[in-house]
Amino acid sequence: MESTIRRIQINTQHLLSNNDCSSDIDPQYLEIKQSFDANALNKYLFPYEPELKESLTTFWKNEKFMLQPTFGLSLEQDRELTFKQFKRLMELALKHFRLVDLERNPKKIAVFTQGYRFQNTSVTTLMGVHFSLFGASIVFLGSEEQRKKYIEKVEKLEIVGCFSLTELGHGSNVQSIETIAEYDHDKEEFIINSPTVTSQKYFIGGSAKNATHTIVMAQLKVSGKMEGVHAFVAQIRNDDGTLVKGVDIRDCGVKMALNGVDNGRIMFKDLRIPRDQLLNKFGGVNKAGIYTSPINPANKRFANTIGALVLGRYIVSIGSVAFNSVGLTTAIRYSFSRKQFQGSDPKHEKQLISYSSHRKRLIPHLANTYATHFSNNYLLDLLSEKEKKEKEIHILASALKAYSSWSTRDCLQECRESCGGQGFLSENLIGNFKSETEIYTTFEGDNILLYQQVAKFMLSESRKNPPSEYQQPSNEQKQRFDKNYIRSFEFLSSALNSRLNQTIQYVTEKLSDSVSEGSAIMDAWNDNGTYIVRLGVAYTEKTILDKFIAGVMNYPDENTRNALKLLVSLYALNIIDRDNWFLKYQFISPEQSESISIQILELCKDIVPFSISLTDALGFDHEKLGPIAGDWISKNKF
Amino acid sequence: MESTIRRIQINTQHLLSNNDCSSDIDPQYLEIKQSFDANALNKYLFPYEPELKESLTTFWKNEKFMLQPTFGLSLEQDRELTFKQFKRLMELALKHFRLVDLERNPKKIAVFTQGYRFQNTSVTTLMGVHFSLFGASIVFLGSEEQRKKYIEKVEKLEIVGCFSLTELGHGSNVQSIETIAEYDHDKEEFIINSPTVTSQKYFIGGSAKNATHTIVMAQLKVSGKMEGVHAFVAQIRNDDGTLVKGVDIRDCGVKMALNGVDNGRIMFKDLRIPRDQLLNKFGGVNKAGIYTSPINPANKRFANTIGALVLGRYIVSIGSVAFNSVGLTTAIRYSFSRKQFQGSDPKHEKQLISYSSHRKRLIPHLANTYATHFSNNYLLDLLSEKEKKEKEIHILASALKAYSSWSTRDCLQECRESCGGQGFLSENLIGNFKSETEIYTTFEGDNILLYQQVAKFMLSESRKNPPSEYQQPSNEQKQRFDKNYIRSFEFLSSALNSRLNQTIQYVTEKLSDSVSEGSAIMDAWNDNGTYIVRLGVAYTEKTILDKFIAGVMNYPDENTRNALKLLVSLYALNIIDRDNWFLKYQFISPEQSESISIQILELCKDIVPFSISLTDALGFDHEKLGPIAGDWISKNKF
Repeated sequence: MESTIRRIQINTQHLLSNNDCSSDIDPQYLEIKQSFDANALNKYLFPYEPELKESLTTFWKNEKFMLQPTFGLSLEQDRELTFKQFKRLMELALKHFRLVDLERNPKKIAVFTQGYRFQNTSVTTLMGVHFSLFGASIVFLGSEEQRKKYIEKVEKLEIVGCFSLTELGHGSNVQSIETIAEYDHDKEEFIINSPTVTSQKYFIGGSAKNATHTIVMAQLKVSGKMEGVHAFVAQIRNDDGTLVKGVDIRDCGVKMALNGVDNGRIMFKDLRIPRDQLLNKFGGVNKAGIYTSPINPANKRFANTIGALVLGRYIVSIGSVAFNSVGLTTAIRYSFSRKQFQGSDPKHEKQLISYSSHRKRLIPHLANTYATHFSNNYLLDLLSEKEKKEKEIHILASALKAYSSWSTRDCLQECRESCGGQGFLSENLIGNFKSETEIYTTFEGDNILLYQQVAKFMLSESRKNPPSEYQQPSNEQKQRFDKNYIRSFEFLSSALNSRLNQTIQYVTEKLSDSVSEGSAIMDAWNDNGTYIVRLGVAYTEKTILDKFIAGVMNYPDENTRNALKLLVSLYALNIIDRDNWFLKYQFISPEQSESISIQILELCKDIVPFSISLTDALGFDHEKLGPIAGDWISKNKF
Repeated sequence: MESTIRRIQINTQHLLSNNDCSSDIDPQYLEIKQSFDANALNKYLFPYEPELKESLTTFWKNEKFMLQPTFGLSLEQDRELTFKQFKRLMELALKHFRLVDLERNPKKIAVFTQGYRFQNTSVTTLMGVHFSLFGASIVFLGSEEQRKKYIEKVEKLEIVGCFSLTELGHGSNVQSIETIAEYDHDKEEFIINSPTVTSQKYFIGGSAKNATHTIVMAQLKVSGKMEGVHAFVAQIRNDDGTLVKGVDIRDCGVKMALNGVDNGRIMFKDLRIPRDQLLNKFGGVNKAGIYTSPINPANKRFANTIGALVLGRYIVSIGSVAFNSVGLTTAIRYSFSRKQFQGSDPKHEKQLISYSSHRKRLIPHLANTYATHFSNNYLLDLLSEKEKKEKEIHILASALKAYSSWSTRDCLQECRESCGGQGFLSENLIGNFKSETEIYTTFEGDNILLYQQVAKFMLSESRKNPPSEYQQPSNEQKQRFDKNYIRSFEFLSSALNSRLNQTIQYVTEKLSDSVSEGSAIMDAWNDNGTYIVRLGVAYTEKTILDKFIAGVMNYPDENTRNALKLLVSLYALNIIDRDNWFLKYQFISPEQSESISIQILELCKDIVPFSISLTDALGFDHEKLGPIAGDWISKNKF
């Protein structure tokens, strides 16, 4: 780190010497230095599997091939390089963990994901498809025999897997997919068919070129009876790469990003697969041709089947924090070294970070990123418990996936813009990562639907434990505008709690009003869709605040803790400032609203001296970042 | 249009026949039909140069080569195809207008830009660089002789131009660029130099491979005296494509999008150019070696030089409306034919458009797009006047560029997400356009800085004509929650007017407080940067509302006018709902705030039946859109 700091200082000197107005630059901004022990904070933020973490850090420092980006390649070249890198990544992964660790030790998977140094995001997507969707299906939905049969082949890439769930006509409504697997009693086989154009498996990553096998999600039909959606393992390509009889695949073509991933669309016509290729942990057909399941009714079985795949949402959330880290580390470092002119007199140039409007663009995203990270750790702890709290995990994973993917979309956009044209250049990573990660908002569950699921959970919980009636703070409280009060965790927690509780009641009343006015419950749900989403958001932001406060207050070093506390206050105040709920329900007075706006700007300013250490603690090695994160002047020498 | 409507109806039937719950679909959403005369509205929206418009429509209907997209090509292939298409586009352009029309008849340029059917956005960017930056510099900054010397060559592409303004160390602060052009009295030449690394011309579109000439913006030095920034024409490549002595160019490499444009960085070392290559309309060196200018002082001259390039901002704004049209036409049509499940019971599927949360995503952007379009037309009228209102043009072009580019960024993002994975596929255009247009936010002036310029203008105007003191509406007014009042233009205009006037006063006070507390005026400006931006936004949104109302109220057909009036109300209510100013300053009561949220949802619903006609009136031919805008089921047949 020392050397980079020095480089940036030199950089700043370059700029100064090239300009005749150096004396106007506020000296405090010239020092890009650690304001606390960033390494110690990094260890606190990433406490799991320290040896694995260390070993991966060393690996990535020296890795060349894997860090070759695909910028500027044709579709074919991009896919070819990506597939090679994916194979290499699988080799690396296997040195550190096995497929069953998805269930036994998800911390290893998390540390591996966090440690991955991406220049080519398509590679992790392919790995996610093969390992965390295809492989995970076998681990979570397969019997012991099925695990034995497949796992080693998956790990050694003797099988390259993809995951066929989404259909042209059905995305989120998985329960209504049209693909059918009918049991043939005579031959003890399933016959898989795509009965309509809309039933084709669509946007299936890895399927257009490379996958040899797929998990097919299909409606199981046994002796004329529909038994609901089940997962089947099917071979789709022969050893020579040709398609298996009964399988037809077309290429989805070029996408706005992630073109290393070969998305395809698949139709099945009388594809026959043996009986034992139904992953039968939650239900299967026995030798006698009878369907049996340990879980009933069918929709509970379905929930288990899909619930097993919750890890994908979690991985989106840790990925989001990692991509935010790249964007923020880059944009904040650049804002310390790049100068821009000042308001009315263009002769006076200052570093970007010294402008209040520039700080306001970046620093709140740093707060959100830290906030998300603490909740990710909490979820990882839940996932690592022997006795898993399935419901809490499902809700939190859905909430964090929605929150973090939108947060990354907005964070990288702001980082891109705040670096100007530099943010648009591929070498600085931000712009490409922006395009590549925005699919996070709609895959693994569309965010709007995820927030509705979270809200549904809250509404059902609230029937058991009704929240307390919303009460405005006292007039005395509403007359407190001082910094200490406005920034205090008591005030902030109470604000987000009150909003959550009142929103639960509000939505409950809205729904029951609609129903009593004659609407079917479904129509009531639809008519109130935007309020329901707001409830999901209110729950998520409140939960994130709770975990953020808990994580920060436990930090041993006071100086660092104080910096983190500023981030907590900024995270929550930003929410209060943006959502008119707080004024509308008079949780705050207009004078407090004014004070909050001011405190947000003050907090952004107060955090600046810590911002280099705070981004460093997120752990993204500067050498892997684009030129503008370091000495971009030297890098642009002719 | 008829055939497409029929196709979508068939499409809907496909979906119905493939699903066993067709009876649950609300029949009103099955009819994708014109609810008013979209062609008549189209003529009203685009009234200029009808013959040119007609001729271009016919041209694009039959054009194949120009509509070949570059999806999936390597950097080299992309650039090669783009350059070929650019040359063809220039040929086409010349059939309809000439370079001097930039000044004489900007309506032709506007109609051409609006008519362009883009699959490859890089082409228009190259044309923008060559025609509206390089060519425009000659038209607006050159003498009659210089016009004569260059214009025909530019039009015939005997010269391929680029525009060297931005430097590595200086983007927005143009007045402080470092490149120097020193006059050599003996040889009657300018010697151009890049004295530092940061002075290299950076991100210069067209320069890495293709341009033969450039406009160089440089500090003019004559007889030891600095005369400010001037524009020079310089040849940079010889006829054989090699670089001219004194010019060194490097490739900026791959970008997140627009890779058909070859951006480069340029350094000059003792490049000598003849005296008559300083574009000397606003100042030049005469034969005697003496600098003369009709405009003094230097900063006024500088403002004229840069002000001449205002057209670029205007083109961003009409481009934004065009790209929004593509996104919205596509996403809204898809939402009529794609079904999704309903809240609690996954068995019941409805078209996306029937969900309140989905309508809330798309319909407000339709309102913003219409709003922007009416202001664009107003600005075009201003630009076409003989006696140009320079100040008003400059402010409005800056305001509209900032507003429209952020609006497009958000609109295409929402369109992308609301189409799920389909929005990510290149063939549906939205995702790629999203990446390509987001550079609009930072080029031709960073939006934050543009809004600050707008605010600065407002502050100086207000010193001459102070706005009336802000007064809350009466208690009686604040107790009106009925739909008619909330949607009324009187209420909405008054709301945006009041916010603007109060914000002017607020910012004025903030600035004067800072100064009286001892801050330098520059520091005061900086400390209040975010408030100043808000003032710029308040002015812009209010101005757009005024022009929107005026445009809508003049529409002759009542049925159509009523549909447009819904858009006006939605545009303004959305602003009021999102900005807590209105509650904070008690322009509205909490009860009105509630009513506004409800009216926004109601308006989105009320607009749906008109939405097909409204998108059709924006004039983007369906055949040029992606599959999901039409019969995407047939297009996905195997």
